[in-house]
Amino acid sequence: MNVVSDQDIKREKILEASYQRFLHYGYSKTTMNEIAADLSLSKALLYYYFPDKSQLYIAVMRKLTCDYFKSLEEGASNFNTLRDAVIYQVNNQHEFMLKNYNFFDFFRLNEQNLPEPIWDIIAEVQQAEMLFLTRAIKSEIAKGEIKPIADPESVVDVLLDALHGIRVSAASQKKIRFPQKDQLDEIHNKRLLLADIFIAGLTR
Amino acid sequence: MNVVSDQDIKREKILEASYQRFLHYGYSKTTMNEIAADLSLSKALLYYYFPDKSQLYIAVMRKLTCDYFKSLEEGASNFNTLRDAVIYQVNNQHEFMLKNYNFFDFFRLNEQNLPEPIWDIIAEVQQAEMLFLTRAIKSEIAKGEIKPIADPESVVDVLLDALHGIRVSAASQKKIRFPQKDQLDEIHNKRLLLADIFIAGLTR
Repeated sequence: MNVVSDQDIKREKILEASYQRFLHYGYSKTTMNEIAADLSLSKALLYYYFPDKSQLYIAVMRKLTCDYFKSLEEGASNFNTLRDAVIYQVNNQHEFMLKNYNFFDFFRLNEQNLPEPIWDIIAEVQQAEMLFLTRAIKSEIAKGEIKPIADPESVVDVLLDALHGIRVSAASQKKIRFPQKDQLDEIHNKRLLLADIFIAGLTR
Repeated sequence: MNVVSDQDIKREKILEASYQRFLHYGYSKTTMNEIAADLSLSKALLYYYFPDKSQLYIAVMRKLTCDYFKSLEEGASNFNTLRDAVIYQVNNQHEFMLKNYNFFDFFRLNEQNLPEPIWDIIAEVQQAEMLFLTRAIKSEIAKGEIKPIADPESVVDVLLDALHGIRVSAASQKKIRFPQKDQLDEIHNKRLLLADIFIAGLTR
């Protein structure tokens, strides 16, 4: 039985309105006052749900992450080859970053000092991507499409590190951790090239 | 004609003695006094050559970098396959890091705020590695050992980013930029796995 309470509905509305604010104006330029006003809520009630802006932000990020997981789940049932699966993952992440780029200004502002719950979310995303690709590799091994691999997890781990390395390198040319928006296409193209070579290396 | 002056010889001796100090005690625990004493130099004379410890450190790092470039040069004439060349590079870097690990405590101490000349040296190292691998790939393409590639530089660029990503990912699990010494073997093994798959993906 799935009971959705009024509280849950209100909470969802707050998350949605906050997401729109964070997305269009960024974390630093959004105030709790504005979010309360968008929803015609009293400030007290907003603070009842979320004790401060950073906790609200983290809750929105959790919701976004769930959407991202859903998109991976949907993709998982829709590919025919390992290449399809990896390219889907690379494209999916690119589109997610492109769409939500402003939302992540929190990362740029706090890149030296991200709060612990954000690190937890990052770890969950990495686990979900790991799981998605490990399943894909195992199913392709079972089909005989790629070479047998003693330890598929370690291959996926290396692939994810490698894909991540391309983002890091683009950003660190500017001595930052988080890439600039105009670097996203370059990162995407380099990742597609990496994915192509890597998959060719696994294919019979 | 290669004139080596007394000044050059003294400078070399300072660099060598400083390297030993930085290597065994780390940057933070080494003092200009100790280096001067090791060489029976007056402090004034040491400061004449290097106005402060950080400039001395950077000069030692330049010298180390030159040794690293030489090892790449030596390797460049000694490989028969692209795999040899990439594995040589990965092993060479691993041994360099292992041998000089303590020397790099400067990086751990200043990871948020490296001085500009260090960034320049990092960029030079990346260029040298890029050149080494680009030559190797071009020569293997010419021999017909690997698939023709329209833009070998971009493939090497992606490979170097990918190799770098493995280091970054290992370090960021501990929320640091510079890996811990006990992570070096894991990084090395993952890079060898990546190199194997990547090269298989380029090979006919």
